[in-house]
Amino acid sequence: MTAPLRLGIAGLGTVGAGLIRLLSDNREHLTIALGREIVVTAVSARDRSKPRDCDLSKAVWYDDPVALAQSPDIDIFVELIGGEEGAARAAVEAALKAGRHVVTANKALLARHGVALAGLAEQNDCALDFEAAVAGGIPIIKTLRESLLGNRIDRIYGILNGTCNFILTKMQAEGRPFAEVLAEAQKLGYAEADPTFDVGGFDAAHKLAILTSLAFGTQVAFDEIHVEGIEHISEADITAADELGYRIKLLGVALRTASGIEARVHPTMVPKHSAIAEVSGVTNCVAVDGDRVGTLLLVGPGAGSEATASAVASDIIDIARGGGVPPLIVPVAHLKPHRRAKIGEHQGAYYVRLSVFDKPGAMAAIAKRMGDRGVSLESIVQRRAKSALPGASGRGEPGAPATVTLITHETTEEAIRGALDAIESDGNVSEKPQMIRIETL
Amino acid sequence: MTAPLRLGIAGLGTVGAGLIRLLSDNREHLTIALGREIVVTAVSARDRSKPRDCDLSKAVWYDDPVALAQSPDIDIFVELIGGEEGAARAAVEAALKAGRHVVTANKALLARHGVALAGLAEQNDCALDFEAAVAGGIPIIKTLRESLLGNRIDRIYGILNGTCNFILTKMQAEGRPFAEVLAEAQKLGYAEADPTFDVGGFDAAHKLAILTSLAFGTQVAFDEIHVEGIEHISEADITAADELGYRIKLLGVALRTASGIEARVHPTMVPKHSAIAEVSGVTNCVAVDGDRVGTLLLVGPGAGSEATASAVASDIIDIARGGGVPPLIVPVAHLKPHRRAKIGEHQGAYYVRLSVFDKPGAMAAIAKRMGDRGVSLESIVQRRAKSALPGASGRGEPGAPATVTLITHETTEEAIRGALDAIESDGNVSEKPQMIRIETL
Repeated sequence: MTAPLRLGIAGLGTVGAGLIRLLSDNREHLTIALGREIVVTAVSARDRSKPRDCDLSKAVWYDDPVALAQSPDIDIFVELIGGEEGAARAAVEAALKAGRHVVTANKALLARHGVALAGLAEQNDCALDFEAAVAGGIPIIKTLRESLLGNRIDRIYGILNGTCNFILTKMQAEGRPFAEVLAEAQKLGYAEADPTFDVGGFDAAHKLAILTSLAFGTQVAFDEIHVEGIEHISEADITAADELGYRIKLLGVALRTASGIEARVHPTMVPKHSAIAEVSGVTNCVAVDGDRVGTLLLVGPGAGSEATASAVASDIIDIARGGGVPPLIVPVAHLKPHRRAKIGEHQGAYYVRLSVFDKPGAMAAIAKRMGDRGVSLESIVQRRAKSALPGASGRGEPGAPATVTLITHETTEEAIRGALDAIESDGNVSEKPQMIRIETL
Repeated sequence: MTAPLRLGIAGLGTVGAGLIRLLSDNREHLTIALGREIVVTAVSARDRSKPRDCDLSKAVWYDDPVALAQSPDIDIFVELIGGEEGAARAAVEAALKAGRHVVTANKALLARHGVALAGLAEQNDCALDFEAAVAGGIPIIKTLRESLLGNRIDRIYGILNGTCNFILTKMQAEGRPFAEVLAEAQKLGYAEADPTFDVGGFDAAHKLAILTSLAFGTQVAFDEIHVEGIEHISEADITAADELGYRIKLLGVALRTASGIEARVHPTMVPKHSAIAEVSGVTNCVAVDGDRVGTLLLVGPGAGSEATASAVASDIIDIARGGGVPPLIVPVAHLKPHRRAKIGEHQGAYYVRLSVFDKPGAMAAIAKRMGDRGVSLESIVQRRAKSALPGASGRGEPGAPATVTLITHETTEEAIRGALDAIESDGNVSEKPQMIRIETL
């Protein structure tokens, strides 16, 4: 039996407490499977006096997480502090420099400093593991690092933010507007008081930055991701998507193109009859297209203290097991620069919703603008706007702008944007055209 | 740089050739990630002269796979021969006894001899890895062995046979009968000339036997699995399922109950609006309910030479990495006996389809038989049989037996079976009642 593996845990919120319970409840099973015991020897948090639902009696307390990270009495430093700078970054750097393995759930830290930290880990012959940083309990990091190492990854995509998926699922199921459902999500604790980080797509982009590096062997490049949020998705879009056979999901997508890596987070139409369309509520998913394996889809909880603790534990188990590939699969010296594909070169089909003034020649002008840029249409649905007045027939009021939804054939983003800009300038539409990319699964 | 890892591959069908191509095409990437080279030093197959789409020029040829397995010039023996006895078993045993790591895609071998082989691997300090044996390219073995080691697994279930899923998907989408779609599957190469092994549920049961052992820490017990195939699923069932909000899938399910492990393979109703219901065609999936992580669902190709080669490669990569848990997660001495729960004690809701003679008191007698055994009903739909005659109204012919579909509330298998036996004995139905279990996801 090998010597026990000693953990120092910094950050004792619900994930930290959940991890300590998990390790305690499963101590015997883990010891039998791994051939060595995992023990928590030291902990650190901001407030020592706070009551916590776990047994800390055998752990040494540190007020300073950096001091904990450097303690000679730990083998692994578990960072559950959070934040891309400050204590989290300082403690992780200190741990690696002191030769301690690091396990972290901190996506912001990795999205910003992933390459530098991976380099530090390599120099000091340490592990830097982060299964919990992307898609919570879904084992996507291990799948990319190990299971798919023999595949060339062509595309990786998924539902990476539970808050957005909860909101879009509710809007679809209950026919309610964005603002109302967001308020409910805030009440339930699924969304922050300032929801921008989630609904603006930035949280998903942090995760996509990490996945992109692992999938394509490139440097982590959060700033190179094209990000759009879900704030502008209306009930009209949700309804039209349903009628056209689609669901709207906030997807993070990264793929290889001839001109570089296309990495983007935005509302996306996916076919209604697909497994990904049925991923509802706060659940996350990640799909990977590999040249050998085809498409793998992993679905599971993207957040939650117990699921996150499970993922953190899997990293600890991995270190207990020994061996392993470098943090970013290849040594950082082998990472390629992230060469960004221009979003204008994105190729795909598009959903477009226009509010068209009911006047002669308007539709002809719109169709011409599309045709001028080589955008051909798969379908056109025109409806008069329903009156909002009670007692109205619901069949559309004469004179009101008609809602026109279009599905294009495959075209480029540059072409569709050019056409929509021209349509807007022509003055035939009463509001800015809505445009949603359709992803081929 | 560590010394190269030397492979001996026995069995050079499409998977073996695909594996050799994968290792060759990704040689540089794998060497960088793993810090050591993977080389194929020896191969064996039945027919040396057969043309193969891979480069064998650097490998030593063996006519006898057992001799290859014992060669001092290999570190890993890759068994791609197939079959639960014969050359496959002999060669795997020989390899382990000679201290070679073993990677196999052979589900039948593991379902029958998994415990003995795992014990042999432990005694000789060898790895025995089998990612490709269950659900093809889906990394479910690694997920159970490593990612979920800190979870108590409560249930594992999935679509484990692509042939059955292809047939059921086609029947549903195209409204065609079983026999016709089976013939098409045979023509496409998705089903064997004798389809019993697939459509009878036995292939899925092999895989479930392995999953059950890993999930619950029990001995592999193929013979303890309750197996039903899809041969008796009719168009009427597919249609009724759709109307009631379900899809019919052949699931393998294993769960803990108070009286033991309930492991079963049978046609199952799953909610139409679930990710698993949208797993269509030859695609497989596996879901795991863990006490910490909640539910994880993995979807991907269950077969195919390239996907299988990808899974075999992941095991080789794992051995190159080093370390690892025992083949069945805990040493075989720690495996618990498989205590089988009685299928009669299965608790769940049921779909029942009856062809009821149109005579006074028939429905009352049926309802009484259900009530006598405490089976309460969630829904009853009664329809007269449509006439098959051309020009008929389609509204049902007087005198023909009426089709009655029932959905029960949760009950026991013993109760529903007792009620259906009594209903059949009463002579109120024109054919054997159809009964399909409903699985709560």
